[in-house]
Order: sequence, then C-alpha cells, then structure tokens
Amino acid sequence: MAERLHGQRPTLEDVARRAGVSKSTVSRVINGEPKVRAAVAERIRGAVAELGYVPNQAARKLVTRHNNAVAVVVTEPQNRLFVDPYFDCHLRGIRQELVRHGAQPVLLFIEEQDDYPRVCDFLGGGHVDGALLFSLLADDPLPDMVEQMGLPAVFGGRPLLGSGHRSDVYTYVDADNRGGAREAVRYLVSLGRRRIATITGPLDQAAAIDRLDGYRDVLPATPPRLLAQGDFTVRGGADAMALLLDQAPDLDAVFVASDLMASGALRTLRERGRTVPDDVAVVGFDDLTPIAEVTEPPLTTVHQDIEEMGRLMARMLCHRTSHPPLRGDDAPSLASVVTPTRLVIRDSA
Amino acid sequence: MAERLHGQRPTLEDVARRAGVSKSTVSRVINGEPKVRAAVAERIRGAVAELGYVPNQAARKLVTRHNNAVAVVVTEPQNRLFVDPYFDCHLRGIRQELVRHGAQPVLLFIEEQDDYPRVCDFLGGGHVDGALLFSLLADDPLPDMVEQMGLPAVFGGRPLLGSGHRSDVYTYVDADNRGGAREAVRYLVSLGRRRIATITGPLDQAAAIDRLDGYRDVLPATPPRLLAQGDFTVRGGADAMALLLDQAPDLDAVFVASDLMASGALRTLRERGRTVPDDVAVVGFDDLTPIAEVTEPPLTTVHQDIEEMGRLMARMLCHRTSHPPLRGDDAPSLASVVTPTRLVIRDSA
Repeated sequence: MAERLHGQRPTLEDVARRAGVSKSTVSRVINGEPKVRAAVAERIRGAVAELGYVPNQAARKLVTRHNNAVAVVVTEPQNRLFVDPYFDCHLRGIRQELVRHGAQPVLLFIEEQDDYPRVCDFLGGGHVDGALLFSLLADDPLPDMVEQMGLPAVFGGRPLLGSGHRSDVYTYVDADNRGGAREAVRYLVSLGRRRIATITGPLDQAAAIDRLDGYRDVLPATPPRLLAQGDFTVRGGADAMALLLDQAPDLDAVFVASDLMASGALRTLRERGRTVPDDVAVVGFDDLTPIAEVTEPPLTTVHQDIEEMGRLMARMLCHRTSHPPLRGDDAPSLASVVTPTRLVIRDSA
Repeated sequence: MAERLHGQRPTLEDVARRAGVSKSTVSRVINGEPKVRAAVAERIRGAVAELGYVPNQAARKLVTRHNNAVAVVVTEPQNRLFVDPYFDCHLRGIRQELVRHGAQPVLLFIEEQDDYPRVCDFLGGGHVDGALLFSLLADDPLPDMVEQMGLPAVFGGRPLLGSGHRSDVYTYVDADNRGGAREAVRYLVSLGRRRIATITGPLDQAAAIDRLDGYRDVLPATPPRLLAQGDFTVRGGADAMALLLDQAPDLDAVFVASDLMASGALRTLRERGRTVPDDVAVVGFDDLTPIAEVTEPPLTTVHQDIEEMGRLMARMLCHRTSHPPLRGDDAPSLASVVTPTRLVIRDSA
C-alpha cells in the first residue's frame, strides 16, 4: 500500500530494466501467460517484489499470491442478521480467525434472486482468496458457482445437494444436528414424557432436516398431529406451538429445533395456560447466549459451539488458500467436520 | 461471468488475432500503459468486449471501467451493529440504491487499530469503485487514507477534521443534527420547562457535538450539573440519567441525543419514581423504528430519515464513480448534503 500512498510509483519499465528483460515479457508474467522460462519469470517476480511494483491487481497477486481477503456470503435478508444472535456469534469466530491469518473479512449478502449474478461476479473477479458460505437452501446455485469458478470455499452447515452431486466435493463445518436432536428427545423420553411433539425448522434447510431426523430416530412412529413446521423465528415458533396445541391438546413435551422458536413456543404455552415444565416440557436447540438463559423458564437446550465453528471454518479456508499456518495451530483437516453437541439442562425440561 | 463458468475461455492470443495486433500490444492496453494509439486501443477494447476476454481484473476493468462493487466501511465493533437498528436502517437504504445501480455492497468492519492497514490495503487494492464510510471518530485516519489513494468516498455523517484540513474535500450526508436539537429544546422551553438537562453522545463524534451545540444555541448558560455524557447505548443513557438526577434532583426535562439512550433514561426515571412527562419531560433523537414507539411512554423525538440518507450516500457515490445515472433520478449533487429533521411529538414530552 505504501507505494500507492507516497511518492513515485514504480512502472512496468522499471521492472523490465531491473530484471533485464523486455516490458512485454514482464507483462506476460504478470498476466500469467505461459511460455516464459521459469528462471526468467522468477527474476521478474524478484524485481516486482524489490521495487514494490503494484500496477494492478495482477501484479499484486504475483507478489503475495493472494488478496488477503475472504468473502463471507450470507444468504439471508440483511435484517434477519440483525435479529438473530446466531449469526453474530458465528461471524465473531470467523472474524477472529481470519484476522489472525491477516485476511480481511468481506461481508456479502444475498437477499433475493437478482443478487446471485452480482455476488458471483464479485467472487469470480479475483478480489478474494476464498469464500465462507452460509445458510444455503436446497437448490441454491452457490455451491455449483463457486466450484465452477475454482474458488476455495468452506460451507457453514452441510449444503443440501441436488441429484448428481457428490457430497464429498464440498468442505463444510456443521454441528451434529441429528445426534443433538436424538439426545434431546431421549432425555424427554427418560423423563417419562409420552406424547412428545416437535417444531421443525424450514424443511428446505439441512439443519432442520437433520434435527427432525434425530427426533425420528428416537420416535419413528410419531403421528403427524405431533409435527409442526416453523421458520427458525420467534413468531414462527409461537404459531407452530399454537397449531400443535390445537392438533394435540394432550401433548406433554415438545422438542423445538431452535432456541428462538422455543422462546416463541414458551410464550404460546403461557398464553394458553400451560405450565412449563409441569404440563409441557420444552427442549430447544442452539444454546444461544443470552436467549436460552433469559426465557421464562430458562431453556433446556442442545448446545453447539457456534463461535468455534466459525473459527474452524476460517482456519480450514485459510489452509486451502495457502495462507501460512500459524505457529501452535493444529494443521486443519481438509475434510468436512461435524462438531459435537451436548444437552444443557435448565428449567424448561 | 458466463465465460468463467462455461466452455473455453478466450485467450490473450484470441484478442490479438481479432484486433489484428501483437499480443504485447494487447497486454499494454490491458495494463493501462500509454504509447498505444487511441484507435488501436479502441479496436483492442472492442475485441476484448466481443470475445468476453477476462484474463484478470485489469481486463475486466478495461471493459466495464469499474468493479461494480462498493465498500461500506463501518468503524464499530461488529456486535454493536447487531444491537443498533440505526445501522440496519442506514444499510437498507444503501443496499437498495447500490443494487439499483448494479453495484455490489461489500461490508468491512474496523473494530480495532490493527484493522486499519488491512482494510486500507483492500480499499486500495482495486477491488471496489468507491467507499461509503461511517461512524468516524476524531483523528480517524480513514479520511486521509482514502483521499491519498484517490478512492471516491462519501461519508455518512460529517467527518471530524484535525487542523490543516479543508472541510470541503470530503463529501458527506448528514442530518441537521444542530437544527433538530434546537427544535427539540425550544419545544421543551415552550412547554414551560425551566431546568432542561441533556444527555450527550460521546463528544468525539460529530453528531454528538452538533446535537449539544443545538441544545446550547437555545440554552447558552446551562450549568454543568445539567450535562451528562452518554455513549449512544441504552445502558449509557440509563447511567447518565442516574448521574443527572444525583447532580440536579430538581430537573424537569431532559433532551437525550439518541433514542437508545432515551430508552435507558426512561428506565432510570421509572426506577427513581419520576413520572414522564409530568415530573420530567423527555425528548430523544433519531425516531428509530420501532424503539421510539415501544418505549413507555412512547418517545417524543427528532425524526431523521436514516434510510433516505443511506440512499442518498449511495446515489452520490455512484455518480462520482461514473455508474450510469438511472432514468428518473435527479442528477445528484457532488456537494455534501444536510437533510432536514423534524420533531415527532408522542407522549414523553
């Protein structure tokens, strides 16, 4: 940056003179054209580095081999981000780790269909070394897009793949959603609850599907009246709880697939005169700070270490984009990681 | 983008053949070197556009003349963003307008001193066509940095300048903070209030200084016991109100320089057994949705159109970065804009 801010910027001609080659040879190396002998190319790179020649993005990359920037792509309305502490927590972990590696986080939102080409254009434009991708819906075009442009990417949450996709081409970090849900429902069974309902997330998202699968692992023969779909919001949880109470007034427990929805469900239960946990035991998922602790009563829920998942995503991406590993770091795996969850027992069950 | 995703990508050689020139001439044009005749350069640009040649960022810019991306730099802890609806609203306006101009918003945070060089490196790296900058403190190095790198920039809020700076080199959009504050305090005076205190924002920020100046325009001889400094947060407002009640138990009104602080002040007044507005009249600033309407009692406050200010910032920047003006738009001014405010009277005063 120094060259941009102060004094005379070195020119392509300066580089050519220093390396003892023609300007067009320098251009060829800068543009990544083949047919320049390795030793000559190396000499030119040396001259570029020595002089701090930064004519454009291409030369910059030639020296540093990367942009020192990573895109964080969030496929959610921007305002959703501002009400859901889950993202805040995730981003905090990502930021910490990227900054430690000297990479600038660059936040991009996809809110509507029209945003895809513009965001992809940016991702493919050579501005970032890689991308962290989030909240993908089924049939989301992003996984294909980043794969085709050859941009290193790590997904937050297992991407849902259409037919014809191999699941091992994408690297992701996810919580053990299915195992966590299983533990939650087994716990409700162990308390002697017999009519255990569930409020799911939107079933076009992997986390919602996996948490429902975990519930079904324990209760494979659940009648449909004990199932209601929410949308991972407080309001959605409140509405789904109302529906469940209409469909199955005799329910004695509910496993809710997110803490935000669980807080809505608690509100509905209170309004309908049901006490928690005596009449209805409630278990959430996420262990969101401070939500899970400030609900009335405080929420028994499945804990996942969201901030650590963010750090892990960033570390895996930096490894793939060849940012130097830092001393004391474990060499991160290139394979996807499913992080463990654990049940945190408070008052709601 | 199409070329990146599908089929054979055209090469430098293809462009040279199509334009009927040597490859090194193409390289020279792509790298922005002089000494290529205008007609030839034009022919090469035509060939690049026809073939959709996208070897690197330089060629891309050659065709489009811009990155179609604009940085939005927020000098605040990221988590502050998630609790302050002010930013959400501002960003909504910015996003709407940038997207309408085909420019991708790219969000960057500055949370600590170490972030400056990395963010500046990105801003100067040719990735974005311009920058929208926010929440600048006194002595913030950003205004100088973007000016030195020649990056078009528009500031959200008047930047505070050190000595030796001319205030007309920066373009900003701001609300009429001083006029709004003046109107609020005049209103309290017109209600017959005689001991009108104020809770200011942090006095290293222009908005806080301007709102205090507006208060002093009406009440130039206020004793220090009627002044307390907050930090634009709910908690800060609550603490400042407690201090004021200790210093001046006989106060009968308070002008609070933000709605978030005012909601904290209302809480303190309630805890101390003062009724609002009978014992103490309260006026806020911002007219934040939904904060100002859901406080108890609802807040009389100074309205500023935050979303429109965001749109205006984006429109001014797109004009400066030569994104094409859109049909039906007024040609935006290149001068700074101070948007009007107006008092919204609810129950707290």
